[in-house]
Amino acid sequence: MKLASLRTGRDGALIVVSKDGARYAHAASIAPTMQAALDDWDACAPRLAELSAHVESGSATTHALEPALLASPLPRAYEWVDGSAYINHIVLVRKARGAEPPATLRTDPLVYQGGSSVLLSPTDPIPLRDPAWGCDFESEVAVILGDTPQGTTKEEAHRFVRLVVLVNDVTLRNLIPDELAKGFGFFQSKPASAFSPFAVTPDELGEAWKDGRVHLPLVTRLNGELAGDPNAGPEMHFSFYELIAHLTKTRAYGAGTILGSGTVSNEDPARGVSCLAEKRTRETLASGKPTTPFLAYGDRVQIEMRDGNGQSIFGTIDQTVTKL
Amino acid sequence: MKLASLRTGRDGALIVVSKDGARYAHAASIAPTMQAALDDWDACAPRLAELSAHVESGSATTHALEPALLASPLPRAYEWVDGSAYINHIVLVRKARGAEPPATLRTDPLVYQGGSSVLLSPTDPIPLRDPAWGCDFESEVAVILGDTPQGTTKEEAHRFVRLVVLVNDVTLRNLIPDELAKGFGFFQSKPASAFSPFAVTPDELGEAWKDGRVHLPLVTRLNGELAGDPNAGPEMHFSFYELIAHLTKTRAYGAGTILGSGTVSNEDPARGVSCLAEKRTRETLASGKPTTPFLAYGDRVQIEMRDGNGQSIFGTIDQTVTKL
Repeated sequence: MKLASLRTGRDGALIVVSKDGARYAHAASIAPTMQAALDDWDACAPRLAELSAHVESGSATTHALEPALLASPLPRAYEWVDGSAYINHIVLVRKARGAEPPATLRTDPLVYQGGSSVLLSPTDPIPLRDPAWGCDFESEVAVILGDTPQGTTKEEAHRFVRLVVLVNDVTLRNLIPDELAKGFGFFQSKPASAFSPFAVTPDELGEAWKDGRVHLPLVTRLNGELAGDPNAGPEMHFSFYELIAHLTKTRAYGAGTILGSGTVSNEDPARGVSCLAEKRTRETLASGKPTTPFLAYGDRVQIEMRDGNGQSIFGTIDQTVTKL
Repeated sequence: MKLASLRTGRDGALIVVSKDGARYAHAASIAPTMQAALDDWDACAPRLAELSAHVESGSATTHALEPALLASPLPRAYEWVDGSAYINHIVLVRKARGAEPPATLRTDPLVYQGGSSVLLSPTDPIPLRDPAWGCDFESEVAVILGDTPQGTTKEEAHRFVRLVVLVNDVTLRNLIPDELAKGFGFFQSKPASAFSPFAVTPDELGEAWKDGRVHLPLVTRLNGELAGDPNAGPEMHFSFYELIAHLTKTRAYGAGTILGSGTVSNEDPARGVSCLAEKRTRETLASGKPTTPFLAYGDRVQIEMRDGNGQSIFGTIDQTVTKL
């Protein structure tokens, strides 16, 4: 099933969306918010699935869906952890800032903890105070977890994946070097992330959801031009299940924790990029310097993923950089 | 006023606590949870203050307070950001792992983003899977913020401080070097933190709340023996107001964001320590190797702060390390 949150209050109002993304039914009688549904998933999920079936069959009262009506599926979340599971992205981006990949690149996942009290809606502007910070998009896939205990193994991890979403993990590239030099990881370099209109259960992905990975191209457009369409599946070195095992080594996670894949990236340059930093690195390797600038005011970023029938699964993250 | 959360449900039940910490009144008629009060603070705070006055005067219905009844003030939070504002702690702990303090030690605050979907109650055990991880306590002061916009200055920051709490920011020392070598900051080395029984408004601290700092000794006991009682005020190099300005450079924060001071530490060795890592570093500097072990199963850590009259302000964080 396909869920979303109408923009209202701090946590939105839960709705069930038709598979074509065109219509929705209110789900308040089942759970007022997506967080409330995640808090009581075993009771709510079957009822939401039933409503979803009624939406498809036409037996539920539905309304036309406008993207601007939607908040992030979770307008605020109790945890936002982002992995960096695509080796090609790590290698390219570290080259860009003259840093070496870690020695444990292929054996120990990289993750960072992001801020989650303010998550941007799919059509919210990217509020940027200073373009000199080097604003970049990062197109990613993420999963939303149920209550996940400490010590979860990668074999058990599938039981805790509730929903799948897309993310624009906005990054301020020029703030990274000084920040990482301090040794505490990213902070100011990671402003608020935006999430896709729809959060879907893994079964909505059919065979594309396999081994804890989403085996479909993730399409990013910059000002209407294709930036990249790398496949999010085969080159995700650490699956979501392996990332969950990594996360839970020393602590437990509450329902509604969002876990990102990191920037989707393929080795084949023909697949393009899911962030400008990779493009700039390729340019530097080819000609000595980057020619693509970071985002400027007015630049528009669109991120979506379509199934084999060309149907958009998550709706479109569609953001424009604006002066704050 | 002094607020707390009874252990019930995922978010606790809001109560108003008497100044002596002995009795409480239910606050459900004002706000069901502390998060709900923070979400609508301007409306709720005057009514909570009124209830607090009734608790003191004896005109409210109150109940005897048992510490074991209490959850963390926020049993889960939308954001937990921890500073490291005591220079002496940074210098000592980096010496311990053979790392240099950052060049910007005195001009650019260190902060990291912690996990916040599971926050431990003040009397919860510290659930440890492997003592070889080097489990340590870190006694800290923290503030809970209201909605705080991007670009808040240190002069404006006082307007967004709602509540003050104590924290035990549990740290797994032996996981830190490998983790920081990867360049993404702390993650597995920072398991769930525990918070004090009571969250108090800054005015409860009287003159001890000054310039965005709490000017009182923070007392930590290990197995009943004093570990340290450093003053949390004068040596907090970056005040909470300066930390807030740092945090909001590139993003906004939602109500209920918790911001920690970092391990409270004084240069004077007679004040002892708020973490074992500092003690071990002092031992190494004096005699070539540390003699104090990290925490073992059964070790008990107690953290509290008393006002000039000897009255405990926040109640006591009282945790025992247990095998998970």
